[in-house]
Amino acid sequence: MKIHTGDFRVHEDATVDLGHWPTEVDPVYKSKKQYKSLLQKHVDKLSELQRLHYASNRYALLLIFQAMDAAGKDGAIRHVMSGVNPQGCQVFSFKHPSAAELEHDFLWRTTRDLPARGRIGIFNRSYYEEVLITRVHPKILQGEGLPDLPADDDSVWHDRYRSIRDLETHLHCNGTRIVKFFLHLSKDEQRKRFLARIDEPDKNWKFSMNDIVERGFWKEYMKVYGECLGATSSEDSPWYVVPADDKENARLIVSQIILDTFDGLKMAFPKTTPARQKELASIRKTLEK
Amino acid sequence: MKIHTGDFRVHEDATVDLGHWPTEVDPVYKSKKQYKSLLQKHVDKLSELQRLHYASNRYALLLIFQAMDAAGKDGAIRHVMSGVNPQGCQVFSFKHPSAAELEHDFLWRTTRDLPARGRIGIFNRSYYEEVLITRVHPKILQGEGLPDLPADDDSVWHDRYRSIRDLETHLHCNGTRIVKFFLHLSKDEQRKRFLARIDEPDKNWKFSMNDIVERGFWKEYMKVYGECLGATSSEDSPWYVVPADDKENARLIVSQIILDTFDGLKMAFPKTTPARQKELASIRKTLEK
Repeated sequence: MKIHTGDFRVHEDATVDLGHWPTEVDPVYKSKKQYKSLLQKHVDKLSELQRLHYASNRYALLLIFQAMDAAGKDGAIRHVMSGVNPQGCQVFSFKHPSAAELEHDFLWRTTRDLPARGRIGIFNRSYYEEVLITRVHPKILQGEGLPDLPADDDSVWHDRYRSIRDLETHLHCNGTRIVKFFLHLSKDEQRKRFLARIDEPDKNWKFSMNDIVERGFWKEYMKVYGECLGATSSEDSPWYVVPADDKENARLIVSQIILDTFDGLKMAFPKTTPARQKELASIRKTLEK
Repeated sequence: MKIHTGDFRVHEDATVDLGHWPTEVDPVYKSKKQYKSLLQKHVDKLSELQRLHYASNRYALLLIFQAMDAAGKDGAIRHVMSGVNPQGCQVFSFKHPSAAELEHDFLWRTTRDLPARGRIGIFNRSYYEEVLITRVHPKILQGEGLPDLPADDDSVWHDRYRSIRDLETHLHCNGTRIVKFFLHLSKDEQRKRFLARIDEPDKNWKFSMNDIVERGFWKEYMKVYGECLGATSSEDSPWYVVPADDKENARLIVSQIILDTFDGLKMAFPKTTPARQKELASIRKTLEK
């Protein structure tokens, strides 16, 4: 079964009501065994394309993952990217900002970790938190020391959307390709996964009371996520809403989207020019002496 | 004599022909002695305002200096900022980018060094080099590994102007105040200063043959500087064209512009609330025990 990744793509200027976007779709695989074989195929292709990406040194690729807790960000990153040479791929997780980071603009701290040309950079959470958790909990904004908080509360979010769009346009112009994943989980599936985390000894370290508190803001989160996705998805740097109630299926969709993105890029191993061939021949001679 | 700093300001969307902007104006001072006393007054006020800026921790201040060689950037920074506590003020000089920097977008390397809230950051050269020297010598652009160099050469510069405007708008929204100085030198005054550099033992380390090569591109530089100033001066982040044939006068103008900028900011020492006064009283008691 082919995955039509376009089905999950948020179009520029779309109005997004996440209530209308599925958290579950017909799975691509028919059995656990078939899932494993499909994922392996994707991982192998990805590994190959990453080598080409690295060698052609033409673009940088930035993958952004955002989701509610327990939606499977960490697992998707682990399962999809584990076949890729870590020299060409770095994951950065953004949690509470440091004091020094809070004394700069909200895009500052992630900029340092943007991928270089030829690399894949993965942001596990990102600057998007600044229009998500910060919007659900405006107290966080109060702590960010902005000099002129507008009287009309909404304008700050629109300013931030614009800042993000402008940044991504700039990065695209300069060779960074950005793909953004929202792993879309249902509230009920989150409950099941939280319960599983409590019961399984190798998972309960991942769980804190704060996760339950945030769960109480589900409706608010869906609202601000929807608005954010609509305001910041663009032709060049699209958002994908990936149904995440089925973890395995989500991983197949995510990896297919990355493969499609690579397919859209003009990449080639550096060409061996006649001058270079001559040089190589001369090196061979020296070595064979 | 009052300095009308507005005279030197480039207005938004202005068309700038630097041939029409003076490199020399009637000096503010009448004697070397008067210059020294005026500058000292400015430096003292600056030092005072910087303390308030640091304590109020509300804005960041970014001062950008661009100019042709020997226009007096280093001297202006040294003479104007030497009274300021270095804990609250950092100067960054941007010369040849490193290999790692060249593998990122052209705004990446300066972002790390943006000033934090409460600080003054000074860029001695800056990301503006990327629309100045890089434009005069398009070979540099070829070396920057952009994936899709446009067929129409000019579009890359307009993309870069837009990137810069967007960045500065974003920084302004988030509390950074940006002031940009172009020290405007005449070609003849540069010749005199170059000759002086060759003759004075404590200055000739500053001189290289490459300076002479760049001097040969004077006309091209004036053209790209003019276009850059017009395209990137804004109400919020203005450019000032400071006549620089008279070094001393240029320093008085630069310092006056910085003072005026501080005057436009809402700054105050943090207020002592009743709760805080109570706390301080209790601390006093403990210390006096």
